[in-house]
Amino acid sequence: MGQRYDNVSFLSDYGHADEFAGVVRGVIRNLAPHVQVLDLCHEVPPHDVRAGGLMLARSVQYLPPGVVLAVVDPGVGSDRRALAVEVGTDEHTAVFVGPDNGLLAPAVAMTGGARRAVSLTNDDYHLPAPGPTFAGRDVFAPVAAHICNGVDLAELGEALDPLSLLPGLMPLTQAGDDGSVHAEVLWVDRYGNAQLNVDPEEVAAYGDRILVRYRDESRIARRVTAFADIGSGELGLVVDSYGMLALALDRQSAASALRLHPGDPVTLEEPR
Amino acid sequence: MGQRYDNVSFLSDYGHADEFAGVVRGVIRNLAPHVQVLDLCHEVPPHDVRAGGLMLARSVQYLPPGVVLAVVDPGVGSDRRALAVEVGTDEHTAVFVGPDNGLLAPAVAMTGGARRAVSLTNDDYHLPAPGPTFAGRDVFAPVAAHICNGVDLAELGEALDPLSLLPGLMPLTQAGDDGSVHAEVLWVDRYGNAQLNVDPEEVAAYGDRILVRYRDESRIARRVTAFADIGSGELGLVVDSYGMLALALDRQSAASALRLHPGDPVTLEEPR
Amino acid sequence: MGQRYDNVSFLSDYGHADEFAGVVRGVIRNLAPHVQVLDLCHEVPPHDVRAGGLMLARSVQYLPPGVVLAVVDPGVGSDRRALAVEVGTDEHTAVFVGPDNGLLAPAVAMTGGARRAVSLTNDDYHLPAPGPTFAGRDVFAPVAAHICNGVDLAELGEALDPLSLLPGLMPLTQAGDDGSVHAEVLWVDRYGNAQLNVDPEEVAAYGDRILVRYRDESRIARRVTAFADIGSGELGLVVDSYGMLALALDRQSAASALRLHPGDPVTLEEPR
Repeated sequence: MGQRYDNVSFLSDYGHADEFAGVVRGVIRNLAPHVQVLDLCHEVPPHDVRAGGLMLARSVQYLPPGVVLAVVDPGVGSDRRALAVEVGTDEHTAVFVGPDNGLLAPAVAMTGGARRAVSLTNDDYHLPAPGPTFAGRDVFAPVAAHICNGVDLAELGEALDPLSLLPGLMPLTQAGDDGSVHAEVLWVDRYGNAQLNVDPEEVAAYGDRILVRYRDESRIARRVTAFADIGSGELGLVVDSYGMLALALDRQSAASALRLHPGDPVTLEEPR
Repeated sequence: MGQRYDNVSFLSDYGHADEFAGVVRGVIRNLAPHVQVLDLCHEVPPHDVRAGGLMLARSVQYLPPGVVLAVVDPGVGSDRRALAVEVGTDEHTAVFVGPDNGLLAPAVAMTGGARRAVSLTNDDYHLPAPGPTFAGRDVFAPVAAHICNGVDLAELGEALDPLSLLPGLMPLTQAGDDGSVHAEVLWVDRYGNAQLNVDPEEVAAYGDRILVRYRDESRIARRVTAFADIGSGELGLVVDSYGMLALALDRQSAASALRLHPGDPVTLEEPR
Repeated sequence: MGQRYDNVSFLSDYGHADEFAGVVRGVIRNLAPHVQVLDLCHEVPPHDVRAGGLMLARSVQYLPPGVVLAVVDPGVGSDRRALAVEVGTDEHTAVFVGPDNGLLAPAVAMTGGARRAVSLTNDDYHLPAPGPTFAGRDVFAPVAAHICNGVDLAELGEALDPLSLLPGLMPLTQAGDDGSVHAEVLWVDRYGNAQLNVDPEEVAAYGDRILVRYRDESRIARRVTAFADIGSGELGLVVDSYGMLALALDRQSAASALRLHPGDPVTLEEPR
């Protein structure tokens, strides 16, 4: 038997309108009654593997030891592989469970990379499925529960070369010839803050005011340390809670005001 | 004392904008600190007893042993009865708690029918209520907690003939003279898949392509086994994760594209 | 060491679209694995301290013993203080954790007032923060977990005079010269019921029918004891589940029909 776990952290694009996430919780509690299911988020936009992967990478260091179950799975029922991926050290391991579509990759990388990976081909550890489309309930949830009960990864299916897993796409900035930084919007949060894929170090040489180009518009943003320091109508550039630069307005949505969405290109440069 | 339980599975139309579901969780944990509350779903459309009953019937086989608390209760405060209904076998029982308006009936039937039922008339097991309108907090939650603590159903109120419970309405298909199947949309899920009340057996004699009539329109659907098998712009007919036929598009909402809603009639027939 | 607790009840304006609430849950479970996090509500409108404070005051008597973590924090990163406030009696204490912006005040008052309060200045009990804007994760969640582990408030920072805490604003009615009651809408719930800041005692001398004035319109409402008693198209005035008067329609949203929002003035008077 492998290590036992008490926690399953659970992310999905199931939303809250249907019973999907609830049924997954039920399957886990049925098979592993000692386990707590920790809901990380279920409002990943439907089928948005990139958004789910970024969210998991932002969150993973704050999750309790155990299984991380992640389901954003537009290819469910096709021949995409279903995975369990072990990460960590001898003393402190965790196991990711989810589809092989890049969703898990950024978080696996954040936690030091895969030690072992298996394709979930042993259906002794699955539920009988009335149809092939709810892998969260029929494959991933029972596998997560069995792992918590101490079933070793080797029991769950064929070993995979971790290098064969589909990588996640983490967009990198590009430096312009003129010292500008070509970036993109990674994430728009509930408050409308637009996180960029920019480390504050990348613009450390800039002054306090930074020119922000987006679509065919531009605007000056001022660096601030707190949302409350942003003046009325002023665009602020904060180091956000994950250590990345984000565009923000005070108590308004910067993303709405600037009409920015995840994936949109944004250029930062020093004003002339 | 009756059997003790560790789980309350909880479905409601309370939504997430208010504290309703949270307060119910609090009442349960206050009275039965050993109990885990498993949120099944709280976004049943307000007052939609049919949608809540279908959701409960789809989910019940996946829930852990214990109490199933379900509150979609447009008649709260009127003379509709409040119920506890025991189902199962001597070794494996479960108790449904909720209003007598048909909400519980499909799930009770799915689990083999009621063994015992009581009307929750003994207010020793209720909370004192500042007003008569929040039975989830003041009646159903404390009763669920007391059942988990081992209080027998007989203590909770007057025994009822299970046959006197209000039945749920499970819409049946009708066979047309021409071999067609007159069906209806049971459920539209987050991804826009439109589940029909059609068992795949009912159209087993049809070919691969099936004519779908709805409103005054019609369209050819192709049987597929996975969403990812549906071509661009093509209408797919899948056996969904509950074993029922569903109309689907690839990574789009079939219900939006066809403007279908729960309860809408749909006819399936072999194309000429 | 102080008292240990098993429950953290958790309210915020984090919504469900992001991982904010999930990460807070993760931090708590990481630091205090024995603790259950009870989600009270996360859909307080963004930055709406008044709505969050009213919700907490409505709910607090139903929460299990332990820590109440509340985060609606538009001033995060500014010099607003972060608080832990102990309430209760020697036998039964609870601790509120959140910002000093009036959010906690109504619930603290409901539970008998503060026994002790501290400013959370000892960052030994915080997480290292990549940026200053996610106090829920980096300050409030770890403090809540440490309190559950038995850390005494005195360890967490400087003692504060409870009288120095920012009070919450609980709007009071005003009596008109003509016997009318000038009130306001406290809360519109999921079903569209508009709770007023009116105790039924205040209109006890009125008859069965009450004139309701709002904006420049007026309408007769009838007192009823249950939503189901309201006739079609009739405006009902019910004593709601918290013991306050609320405007309601049968299975429709009274707030939508009358275009009422939280904070809107409403006058009640006897019809001539």
